[in-house]
Amino acid sequence: MPSPSQQTSFALGLDLGGTKVEAALVDEHGTVLTDSRFRLPTGPATTPAGLEAAVTSLVTRAVERLPEGASLVGAGIGSAGPVVAATGTVSPLNMAGVRDFPLRALVQSVLPDLPVRLRIDGLCITLAEHWVGAGRGVDNLMGMIVSTGVGGGLILGGRTIAGPSGNAGHIGHVEVAGFDDPCACGGRGCLEAVASGPKTVAWARSHGWTGHTGEELAAAHATGDPIAVRAVERSGRALGQAIASATNLLDLDVVAIGGGFSHVSPDLFENARAAIARRVVFDFATKVRLVPSALSGEGPLIGAAALIHRAALVAEPVF
Amino acid sequence: MPSPSQQTSFALGLDLGGTKVEAALVDEHGTVLTDSRFRLPTGPATTPAGLEAAVTSLVTRAVERLPEGASLVGAGIGSAGPVVAATGTVSPLNMAGVRDFPLRALVQSVLPDLPVRLRIDGLCITLAEHWVGAGRGVDNLMGMIVSTGVGGGLILGGRTIAGPSGNAGHIGHVEVAGFDDPCACGGRGCLEAVASGPKTVAWARSHGWTGHTGEELAAAHATGDPIAVRAVERSGRALGQAIASATNLLDLDVVAIGGGFSHVSPDLFENARAAIARRVVFDFATKVRLVPSALSGEGPLIGAAALIHRAALVAEPVF
Repeated sequence: MPSPSQQTSFALGLDLGGTKVEAALVDEHGTVLTDSRFRLPTGPATTPAGLEAAVTSLVTRAVERLPEGASLVGAGIGSAGPVVAATGTVSPLNMAGVRDFPLRALVQSVLPDLPVRLRIDGLCITLAEHWVGAGRGVDNLMGMIVSTGVGGGLILGGRTIAGPSGNAGHIGHVEVAGFDDPCACGGRGCLEAVASGPKTVAWARSHGWTGHTGEELAAAHATGDPIAVRAVERSGRALGQAIASATNLLDLDVVAIGGGFSHVSPDLFENARAAIARRVVFDFATKVRLVPSALSGEGPLIGAAALIHRAALVAEPVF
Repeated sequence: MPSPSQQTSFALGLDLGGTKVEAALVDEHGTVLTDSRFRLPTGPATTPAGLEAAVTSLVTRAVERLPEGASLVGAGIGSAGPVVAATGTVSPLNMAGVRDFPLRALVQSVLPDLPVRLRIDGLCITLAEHWVGAGRGVDNLMGMIVSTGVGGGLILGGRTIAGPSGNAGHIGHVEVAGFDDPCACGGRGCLEAVASGPKTVAWARSHGWTGHTGEELAAAHATGDPIAVRAVERSGRALGQAIASATNLLDLDVVAIGGGFSHVSPDLFENARAAIARRVVFDFATKVRLVPSALSGEGPLIGAAALIHRAALVAEPVF
């Protein structure tokens, strides 16, 4: 009779983000095998050769930790966008030297006999929320990250929405009425340009607050600093407005919000909910529930692995 | 050997709008059987009893025109929203006396042995564009109507997106940055509050133009009237901004735009395209193509019938 570990199927999860690239084995219950988790730094200076070496090393080391008798069933990759899902290439915005990088082909070359699937990180986060997080079993769900940027992903009708290029889910570049802040995308008044951590801090500083970080802003808010309170009110309102737009368009049931800046204060959520509640005429829009993410820092890895373990939710075409 | 008419399958299409309710038989190629088309007026004074009588009459009269030997395979209903798709009930905004009206059950009672399906009108229009219109075969498509209001519908990954309540597609209540116009939904800066025909006319009048209708505004624009030009510029820009938001969220390929006010001037489209083109950093967003609807006034009926004839595109759950 086989031992439990011999019956376990693992998927490799790989997460490529703006500050780090990480890999780990994840079992079919969404549990990360702790001693298979490895990471290396990334950043604006990352080169294609450096990224290739890092990914090859991480994947190889993670896979070496596969328990004896357990099986490796595939690899899922979540990447900072933009991506081209059909070709498995990525061009992370903050790594100017990394363009059209063949990330899926690289992982495939290390694991030649297994399925390898790639999606943007926001979609993977949403899969993780649906699987083990705050949106378990919610089939009309948006996952969001509010951090240095604002990103997200969508599950509609029980299936992920990747979009033809693989870039669906960019809630950070949905506009918010009454705002006109210039955005790095070329537009104005995008949610990310208003409500990301750095943009909220910048607004507070431009109104006389003297701190520098989101953590300091959280501390100031906790003491009732009036500028910090106004800054969180403003960003929360923008967050709610963008979610209201998304819900009018998509009839969402739940939005699960994580990311470092989402913890600045519970008032961020309350202000967002108040903005949504203004849309009084449409029950289907005001019904949406905003909940804090229930994922740990392992969320991106679990979500990447879900591209394999939860393949039935991954809408066609399966890249 | 059967004659061609004996081989034909028809679906009944029923369209419930703010000014009229209409029914007709539609064949499997998306062609309306002209002499089966009947309509009756609706409006703010419509009562449930009046609507019940009108729908019963229209469905009965249309079905009586079924050619000898042809088969009737089902009925599709497009309705002004909000709707509750799961129960087949409708509460059209501008008919205050008609709430939770059991429209699907009513049609089912007239056609007891056939499948009867109900969706919001914007989704039906989008199915019609995908079938016989400007979005043929485009599997990531938004259909839009710019008229008294602004509505729409979505096909993503080749399947319609109805949403859990049936109200997905409300692009008119997506916000536009830099605008703050109060909206009937309770929000501010919604696309519909800026760019509908009546709102564009109202803006022009508030800036000194003296006409009263969208047709007059179109004529004034054609002669180069500076206020009319600015009014169309403003509404076109708002249209483009809302579409840019939708495309960032959904990675759309094509948006097909119809409705009376969409004909005000080709500049409406040009201004919308210019607003989208500002989002220079994201190729996946600027790739979206805006095209005029290729549907005639039969579009809503064809789209309603498509709920039956094109059932494979209608995402589960099939209400």
